[in-house]
Amino acid sequence: MSKSEKKAVVLLSGGIDSTTTLAIAKKEGYRLYAMSFRYGQRNRFELDAAKRIAKLFEVKRHLIIDIDLRLIGGSALTDNIDVPKGRTDQEIESGIPVTYVPARNTIFLSFALGWAEVLRAEDIFIGVNSIDYSGYPDCREEYIRAFEKMANLALKETVERRMKIRIRTPLIKMRKSEIIKKGLELGVDYSMTISCYDPLPDGRPCGLCDSCILRKKAFQELNMVDPAYSG
Amino acid sequence: MSKSEKKAVVLLSGGIDSTTTLAIAKKEGYRLYAMSFRYGQRNRFELDAAKRIAKLFEVKRHLIIDIDLRLIGGSALTDNIDVPKGRTDQEIESGIPVTYVPARNTIFLSFALGWAEVLRAEDIFIGVNSIDYSGYPDCREEYIRAFEKMANLALKETVERRMKIRIRTPLIKMRKSEIIKKGLELGVDYSMTISCYDPLPDGRPCGLCDSCILRKKAFQELNMVDPAYSG
Repeated sequence: MSKSEKKAVVLLSGGIDSTTTLAIAKKEGYRLYAMSFRYGQRNRFELDAAKRIAKLFEVKRHLIIDIDLRLIGGSALTDNIDVPKGRTDQEIESGIPVTYVPARNTIFLSFALGWAEVLRAEDIFIGVNSIDYSGYPDCREEYIRAFEKMANLALKETVERRMKIRIRTPLIKMRKSEIIKKGLELGVDYSMTISCYDPLPDGRPCGLCDSCILRKKAFQELNMVDPAYSG
Repeated sequence: MSKSEKKAVVLLSGGIDSTTTLAIAKKEGYRLYAMSFRYGQRNRFELDAAKRIAKLFEVKRHLIIDIDLRLIGGSALTDNIDVPKGRTDQEIESGIPVTYVPARNTIFLSFALGWAEVLRAEDIFIGVNSIDYSGYPDCREEYIRAFEKMANLALKETVERRMKIRIRTPLIKMRKSEIIKKGLELGVDYSMTISCYDPLPDGRPCGLCDSCILRKKAFQELNMVDPAYSG
């Protein structure tokens, strides 16, 4: 099968990392199948961003899955727990914050896995990153490789040896500023992306949550104005 | 922590295997948290059975998660693909049938994993069985152990070493008739369970799908009348 016929499932949240990952998969010549989740997250604008980005990248299909993780709870992103604001770099780097959502990437990757089997797509792209990140355990290389191993034992198509699943993580060792640089080279318009954990009622980013702070710092390192904050 | 304070998440479909698994977890003294899924399955009676069974076993909580796997497709249980009927033992044992649902146990276990972390429940029970079964890859020991390994790398609580997840599969090496025998010893009322892939409009089992055939055979081996079919 030539690269141009190869399909990839790409997890797309509408933030910097997943959008850059989508651009990388497109650059590699895959036919793109984007997957997003309405999981009860506070940020109700990110799915609109994901939809606009999927359209711009001309994905073959964009599947939005409804799963109510509020039933399970345990996170500031889905529960009535305050999202931390104005933390220092040191505070951000110290341990796993309350914005962690239990088993989120495992749940997302599991749905992607089912869809990948139906599509006969061997590559699943996820924009995890373990350098400028929030310390989430399910963003680490070791976790991703364990998921991949499990995935290749889970499916009819992998067990019958017609498919081999690869979990692709092109950003995993990149700094946030490197990710943005890479995306700009690939023509990503970051004004379309949204990263905030807890945006204002009009959709503007709060500017104070860990995600906003990491983003702001990355654009500063590149001596750039973040196009999503400049409006 | 004494056994009586220990919590277990138990995946409960309302069939023979998951009900027997629930009875085993109860016998072991766990506080029970049952989890079921409305995933677009043909059998719209099995969730009612699961609810009645959860109530009878006095579970602390029974969470029913809505996920529409019809969006992903690829299975006779969720799509407009005919469920095979009247197959011989040899046909049932030859390969993975069209009733296979892509990544189903991976998706179910992922949700159970998230809930287990929030509850601080270290044990997740699943009634998989690789003897009298339909050949599904995600029912095998090798798959389960790979999931468990991934799970212990996925969570805040496991990575910070406050929890260790165990995927408990008490039935994995048991024949279907042994499972029923075990359940009867524990007082399970199998008239409450439903196994059929494609029941009649009034809720009665079809008697002809692989699941009905495996069930019928098991009761015959025990020289018993299946209480769910005798009504």
